[in-house]
Formats: sequence, C-alpha cells, structure tokens
Amino acid sequence: MTYTIRIIGIDPGLRRTGWGIIEVTGNRLEFVASGTVESDNKCAFAVRLCQLYEGLSQVLQSYTPNEAAVEHTFVNKDATATLKLGQARSIALLAPAQAGLHVAEYAPNVIKKAVIGVGHGGKHQIHMMVKILMPLAICDTNDAADALAIAVCHAHSRQARKFLERTKPIFKCVKNKS
Amino acid sequence: MTYTIRIIGIDPGLRRTGWGIIEVTGNRLEFVASGTVESDNKCAFAVRLCQLYEGLSQVLQSYTPNEAAVEHTFVNKDATATLKLGQARSIALLAPAQAGLHVAEYAPNVIKKAVIGVGHGGKHQIHMMVKILMPLAICDTNDAADALAIAVCHAHSRQARKFLERTKPIFKCVKNKS
Repeated sequence: MTYTIRIIGIDPGLRRTGWGIIEVTGNRLEFVASGTVESDNKCAFAVRLCQLYEGLSQVLQSYTPNEAAVEHTFVNKDATATLKLGQARSIALLAPAQAGLHVAEYAPNVIKKAVIGVGHGGKHQIHMMVKILMPLAICDTNDAADALAIAVCHAHSRQARKFLERTKPIFKCVKNKS
Repeated sequence: MTYTIRIIGIDPGLRRTGWGIIEVTGNRLEFVASGTVESDNKCAFAVRLCQLYEGLSQVLQSYTPNEAAVEHTFVNKDATATLKLGQARSIALLAPAQAGLHVAEYAPNVIKKAVIGVGHGGKHQIHMMVKILMPLAICDTNDAADALAIAVCHAHSRQARKFLERTKPIFKCVKNKS
C-alpha cells in the first residue's frame, strides 16, 4: 500500500530560517508550501529566538507535517558565528520535536548529494534542481529553496532506508544457505 | 518605595541546566528555590532540547519570576563543544523570553566578580559565597549554585544601574554650573 507522507525541511538561520513542505507518495514528490521565518536584528537575542520559535510553530500548526528534517550546523573556524547559527538551529530542532515529530538531521554535503548528485554545489544549482524535481515549487528565497532541498534529501533517505529494510531478510537467507 | 523582585538565574548545559530563584528587596537577597533540569543523553538531540525546554517552562510557571539572567556561553577552541552548549543555552534564553520576562546575559567573569569579588575562582568559592550571601540557600549541585550566583549578579547589576540612573541628574547639574 502506498501512502502519502508530509515532510518539513528547515534551513536554520538567526536572521532568516527557511522552511519547505513537500508530500511524498511512493517515488512521487509534490510541493506543498515554502517560506521564511524572520527575526528582527534590532531586538534582543532572546526575543529573536522567540520570533523564530513562534514563526515555526505557526507553520507546523498550519501544515501539520508528519516528519521533519533539519540541516546540521557546519562547524567552521569562526566559533562565534558557529555559536549564533547553532542557537538558531536549536529552535529549528525544538519546534518540530515539541509538535511530536521525528526530527532527522543531515549534513550540508549529504543534502547536496541527494539533490544535485554531488556533495558540493552552489545555491543556484540547488534552486534549479528543486524546480526540476518539483516544477510547481515556489521558492522565493534561497533559504526556502534550501529548506525544500532538505525535505527532498529526507524523502530520498527514507526510501533508501525502506529499501534496505525490505532487502535485509533476503540477504540473511542467502547467508544462511551458504 | 521598596518593592520585591523575583529573579531566576539559569546556568545552561545540555546534560544539566541549573536554575536558582531569589527575591530582592532593596539590598536584601532571599533564597526562594533552586534545582536542575536534566536531559537524557540516550535520547535524540531534538528530544533532549524538548526536555530542557519543558523542565524550565515548568519552573517558570511554578515560581513566576519577574526577570531572568543567563550565563554567556564561553567560546573556546573546541567549536563542537561550544556549539552543543550554545544550543542548550538557546533553550535557556527562549523559555523565559516566551514567558514574557526580560532576559539579561552575563559573561562568566562578570558573574564571578559580582559574587566572589574577582573575575576568576573555582566552583567551590562560588558555592561558599552563595551560602554566605543567602544562608538559607539550598544548592545540591554546582549547577544550581552557579544559577543562584547568576541571579545574585543580576540583582547587583540592577542596583548599580538604578544608582547610576538616580545620580545622573546630579552630575548633569554640576556640569552645567562649571
């Protein structure tokens, strides 16, 4: 039986957090919605985190996805910048987990590999590939396109896991026979 | 008129987040409660953040503080460790901000200076000084003692700010006369 699953992909950022929602039925990917949640950089840091949390919670309430996927924070040499991004990422993990969703995490190169075929590539390539995979996708910003790419990566990963689960018993039988 | 203000101090940590609540009436500090909120390290990262958020939200609901103070994350060379701590800190900032509290942030050396008089000192010294300042304080863990120290630091900082605000017009008058 083929059932439909709704996935939210989140691209965390303190200034702008991108989100993208897709539906997966078997191998078919369908665009549902995308956008960005913004925080006001004139506000205190704690207030900015609140703005992100409330924005994401509203998206989760409106579109009721079944699973969530978030990009891993890239730990670079600038520890202060990594810390800021990590704090925004924390909100991107908390909001769906609080809504009872399983939250998967993917490294940036894994996402790129799943969408454009290689582990390195520009924002433009991701944007283009998202449009090829889902022609009806509306992604006004790079953050929204990245979020859709994260959702696509999770859809592929789910299918790969399912395939492995299905094929596992066969391998086991072969092993027992030899 | 002297009024009483209730302050929550939070010492963020992914495994254990310490919290301490004090009441300030003029120069008088009074211990209210302290404890730790723990996350299960066997759970997924997003679930651990949820556990911290829910634990802190419960504390805020139970003790209804008026203001909150959180320790700044120390950015060290180990960016991965800084990132983990930063993600826990994000929750410590979000929970009180969502409860409508003003959240002040203090660097570790500022907290030590406010409590033990110098910017460097061990956990034991902080623990001891918290007990001297508030003999009835119960701090079962170092995290709870640190959280109380953060609350004490905020209480001192508030008083210093108030004093400066009161003395500002006097300085202005002197300047005008010369």
